[in-house]
Amino acid sequence: MEEGARKSFSLAELAGQFGGTVIGDAGVRIRQVAPLETAGPEELSFLTNRKYQKQLATTRAAAVLLSADSADATQLPRIVCKNPYASYARIAALINPEVRPVAGIHATAVVDAQASVAASASVGPCAVIEKGAQIGEGAVIGANCFVGRGTRIGAHSRLHPNATVYHDCIVGERVILHSGVVIGADGFGMAMDDGRWLKIPQIGRVVIGDDVEVGASTTIDRGALDDTIIEDGVKLDNQIQIGHNCHIGAHTAIAGCTGIAGSVRIGKHCMLGGNAMISGHLTIADRVVVSGGTLVAKSITEPGTYTAVFPMQPHAQWLKNAALIRHLDEMMERVRHLEGEVKKLKGK
Amino acid sequence: MEEGARKSFSLAELAGQFGGTVIGDAGVRIRQVAPLETAGPEELSFLTNRKYQKQLATTRAAAVLLSADSADATQLPRIVCKNPYASYARIAALINPEVRPVAGIHATAVVDAQASVAASASVGPCAVIEKGAQIGEGAVIGANCFVGRGTRIGAHSRLHPNATVYHDCIVGERVILHSGVVIGADGFGMAMDDGRWLKIPQIGRVVIGDDVEVGASTTIDRGALDDTIIEDGVKLDNQIQIGHNCHIGAHTAIAGCTGIAGSVRIGKHCMLGGNAMISGHLTIADRVVVSGGTLVAKSITEPGTYTAVFPMQPHAQWLKNAALIRHLDEMMERVRHLEGEVKKLKGK
Amino acid sequence: MEEGARKSFSLAELAGQFGGTVIGDAGVRIRQVAPLETAGPEELSFLTNRKYQKQLATTRAAAVLLSADSADATQLPRIVCKNPYASYARIAALINPEVRPVAGIHATAVVDAQASVAASASVGPCAVIEKGAQIGEGAVIGANCFVGRGTRIGAHSRLHPNATVYHDCIVGERVILHSGVVIGADGFGMAMDDGRWLKIPQIGRVVIGDDVEVGASTTIDRGALDDTIIEDGVKLDNQIQIGHNCHIGAHTAIAGCTGIAGSVRIGKHCMLGGNAMISGHLTIADRVVVSGGTLVAKSITEPGTYTAVFPMQPHAQWLKNAALIRHLDEMMERVRHLEGEVKKLKGK
Repeated sequence: MEEGARKSFSLAELAGQFGGTVIGDAGVRIRQVAPLETAGPEELSFLTNRKYQKQLATTRAAAVLLSADSADATQLPRIVCKNPYASYARIAALINPEVRPVAGIHATAVVDAQASVAASASVGPCAVIEKGAQIGEGAVIGANCFVGRGTRIGAHSRLHPNATVYHDCIVGERVILHSGVVIGADGFGMAMDDGRWLKIPQIGRVVIGDDVEVGASTTIDRGALDDTIIEDGVKLDNQIQIGHNCHIGAHTAIAGCTGIAGSVRIGKHCMLGGNAMISGHLTIADRVVVSGGTLVAKSITEPGTYTAVFPMQPHAQWLKNAALIRHLDEMMERVRHLEGEVKKLKGK
Repeated sequence: MEEGARKSFSLAELAGQFGGTVIGDAGVRIRQVAPLETAGPEELSFLTNRKYQKQLATTRAAAVLLSADSADATQLPRIVCKNPYASYARIAALINPEVRPVAGIHATAVVDAQASVAASASVGPCAVIEKGAQIGEGAVIGANCFVGRGTRIGAHSRLHPNATVYHDCIVGERVILHSGVVIGADGFGMAMDDGRWLKIPQIGRVVIGDDVEVGASTTIDRGALDDTIIEDGVKLDNQIQIGHNCHIGAHTAIAGCTGIAGSVRIGKHCMLGGNAMISGHLTIADRVVVSGGTLVAKSITEPGTYTAVFPMQPHAQWLKNAALIRHLDEMMERVRHLEGEVKKLKGK
Repeated sequence: MEEGARKSFSLAELAGQFGGTVIGDAGVRIRQVAPLETAGPEELSFLTNRKYQKQLATTRAAAVLLSADSADATQLPRIVCKNPYASYARIAALINPEVRPVAGIHATAVVDAQASVAASASVGPCAVIEKGAQIGEGAVIGANCFVGRGTRIGAHSRLHPNATVYHDCIVGERVILHSGVVIGADGFGMAMDDGRWLKIPQIGRVVIGDDVEVGASTTIDRGALDDTIIEDGVKLDNQIQIGHNCHIGAHTAIAGCTGIAGSVRIGKHCMLGGNAMISGHLTIADRVVVSGGTLVAKSITEPGTYTAVFPMQPHAQWLKNAALIRHLDEMMERVRHLEGEVKKLKGK
C-alpha cells in the first residue's frame, strides 16, 4: 500500500483533470477512493448504481462522484460527471499509481545475446529471454518469466512473475499478462491414425493487440497453421482457455473459467459470462452477450443476450424435475394423445 | 517414498497415540496404510463405508481401523475408534511425515535486502522475495516461487515450486499453496468508457487465514478496494478461480474447477462440488452444499443441498428432450388449452 | 518460424516417404503446408472434409492431399492417400521440425548432485532438479521447470518452461508437458474431524505412460494411497484437472477445461468434450464419447455418445422455459389429471 507515498488532491484538481462539476467545498482533499459503506475522511466515494443511493445518507466519505440525475441526492461535497465509474477508475489510478520496477536487467536474468531489450525495460530475477526476442520500451518482464525465441513484447507491456510466452508470438503495447499465463502453447491438434493420435505441428503464432489484459493462469494456444488473434482492448479474466486459431474481436470482455474451443471467431464488444463454453468453429456476432455457464453450440448471428443454464433448486426438487426431463418426449406424447382424445370427445 | 526411512508402529502404540481400543494382537506392527483391496502384511487398512464391508473377508491387511458398529465384522487385529477416517489420516501422517527442505536461503534465491526471512525458514533455488516481504518461522518457499513486496507468509506455511503471491498480501500459518497457485493478481474490474474498457486499479489485498490449503493452479484475486478474504481452515482444490472481494467462511471446502465471481460471500462449513459456478455479489449461508456443475445465480439463505444439472442421456435421446425444452412454454400452453376443453366437455 | 532453415520437398519425395499416389506433376516442390483458403505457391494443402471441397476450385495451393474418393475433384497436382489428415500431420512435421535446445545443463540450472541427467538431455536456465531425479536421453527440461526428488522423466520427453513435476512421479518417453502443467500435487483428500478438515497425506504417485501430451496449465494430482495413472498415448488439452487415483486408458483424448474428480476410471479410446465434468469414483467404458459441457454423474458401461447440455436460447425465451423446468412435476401432475378426466368423460 505504501501509504507514505500517497499524495492528496483537491476536488477542484480532480474535476479539472478528469472533468465534472464540483458542488460544495471544492477544496476538500482526497487521499484515497473507497466504497460508500466503508469510506472515511479524506476518501472519495462514488454512486454508480441507484441501488446504493440510500448509503449516501450514512456514508462518512469526504466527497462523492455521481451523475447529474443524482446530483441532489446528497449534501456532501461532490463531483457531478457524465460517467462516475470511469471517473472513479481514473482517479483511483492517479492516487494509486502502479509500482513498476526500475529499468535494467537483473543480474540473475538469462537474456540471450541475440535478444533485444530496450534500455527503459525491466527484466526481473531469473527471467529467461531467448534468442531473437524483442522487449519494447518501458516493458516489464517479471521474475521467473519466459519469453521464447523470436517473440516480441510491445512497449510498456507487463508480464507478471511466472508468465510464459512461447516462441514467435507478438504481444502488443500496454498489454498486461498476469502470473501463470501461458501464451503460445501448442493447440490441441491431432490426427487419428490406426488407433493412435498423431500430433499435428502447431506452426501458427499468437498475435495479441494493444491494451489487452490477460488474467492469471489463462492460456491462449498458438495457431495450427494460421495465427490465433486477440484484437486490441480485449480483457480476459483468469483461467480462460482459448484454443488454436481463435479470433477475438476488439474490446470483447470474457469472464473467468470460460473455455473457447479451436477456430472460434468472436466479434467486437462481446461479453462472455464466467464458465461459459464455446464449441469449435463457431462464429459469434459483434455485441453478443453470453450468460455465465452457457454452452454455445451453434453460431450466433444477431446481437443480444443468450443463455443456457439449468435453474438451481433444492436437491430433492431437482431430482423430481431432472427425472421428468429424461422423459419429456413421453410427456409430450401423452399431451398429443390427450389432444386426440379430446378432439374425439368433442366430435361426439 | 524413501522406504528406508519409514518406521513401524504397533497397534498398541497407534491406539495409545490416537485413541481407540485394540481388539486382537496389539503387538502387530504397521509400516504403511493401504486400501482394503491392496493392503498387504505390515499394512493397516480402514473401513469407513459399509459398502466396502465385504472386502474385510478377503483383505490381506495386517490390521484394520473401524468404528464400534463394525467391530465384529472381521477377526483381524483391529483398532475400534470413533472416527476411523480421521484416525487413518493421523496415522498416515505419522508414518509418512512430510519431507521439508533444510532451513536456509538457497544461493540462487533472490531475497531483497529489506525482506525478512526467519532463520528456520527455507527458501528454494531461484525463488524471488521482494522488499518488505516477511517469511515466518519454519516456512518453506519452493523453487521458482515469487513473493511480492510487503507480503507476509506465516509460520510453517509452504509454497510449492512455481507458486506466486503478489505484493501486500497476507498468508496465515500452516498454509499450503500448491504449484501454479496465483494469489493477489488483479481482479477483473473495469469501467466502460466510450466503447473502451478502462482498468480499475485493484488496491485491496488477499488475506488468507491459518490452515488453508490451496490446490494447484488455483487463483485468488486481490480486492478492488477492500480485501479478498479466505478464512481459517478453508480447503480449495485445483483450478479454482476466486474473484476480487470474495469472502470465504471458515472450514468451507471447494472442489476443483469451480469459479466464484467477484464480491461473493460464502458462509462457514460449506461444500461446493467440482465445476460449480457462483455468480457475482451473491451470499451463500453457512452449511450450504452446492452440487458439482451447479450454477448458483441467486443467493442461498438456508442450509441444504442445491443442484442445477442437466441429466445426462445417450445423445439421440438428449436431442429429443433438448428440442422439447426449447418449447416447454408451448407444451404448457397445450396443457392449459386441454384443461379448458375438458372443463367445457364436463359442463356439457 | 526460421524461414531460412526450411527445406523444400517434391511431391514424389513426400509420397515416397509417407505413402500415396501422385497424380499430376510429381516434381512440384513444397515448402510449407497451409489451408486451402490461404495456401499459396510452394504450399501443400489438404482436403479432409467434403464440406470444404468447393475451395478446391479457387485454392492457390501448389498441390493437395486427398483421399481416393475425391481424387478427381481437382486438376491440381495431388497425392491421393488413405488418410490425408494423417499424411498432412506427418508432412507438416517433416517441414517444420521441432526446435530443440542443444544438450547440456545451463549454468543457472540447479541440479542436485544425486540427480542423474543423460548426456544428451538439455536442462534450461533456472530449472531445478532435485535429488534422485532421473532425466532420460534427449529429454528437454525447459527454463524455470521443477522436477522433484526421485522423479523420472523418460527419454525424449519435453517439459516446456514453468512446468512442475512433484517428487516420486514417473513420466514416460516422448511425453510433452506444456508450460504451467503441474503433475503430482496433493489430491484433495481430507477427513472431517470435529468441524475441522484434517489433511490426508497423499502418498501415491502420478505414473504417465509414453507418447502422452499434457496441455498448458493442466493439473494431475498424485494418488492418495495408490497411484494416479495416465496410460500411453493419452492426449490432454489445456486447463484440465485430473483428481487423485484416476486411471485414464490408452489413447483417450480430453478437451480443455474438463474436470475429473477423484478415483475415476476412464477406458481406452474415449473422447471427452471441453468443459465436461466427471464425478468421483465412476467408471467410463472404452470408446465412450462425452459431449462438451456434460456432467457425468453415473458410470457409463456402453460405448456411445452421451450428452447433458441445456440448449441455448435468447435470454427472454430461456427465462420462460427455465421457470417451467422448476415446475415440471406440476405440469406432469396436470397431464395425469387430464388423463383421468378424459377417461371419465369417455366412460360417460
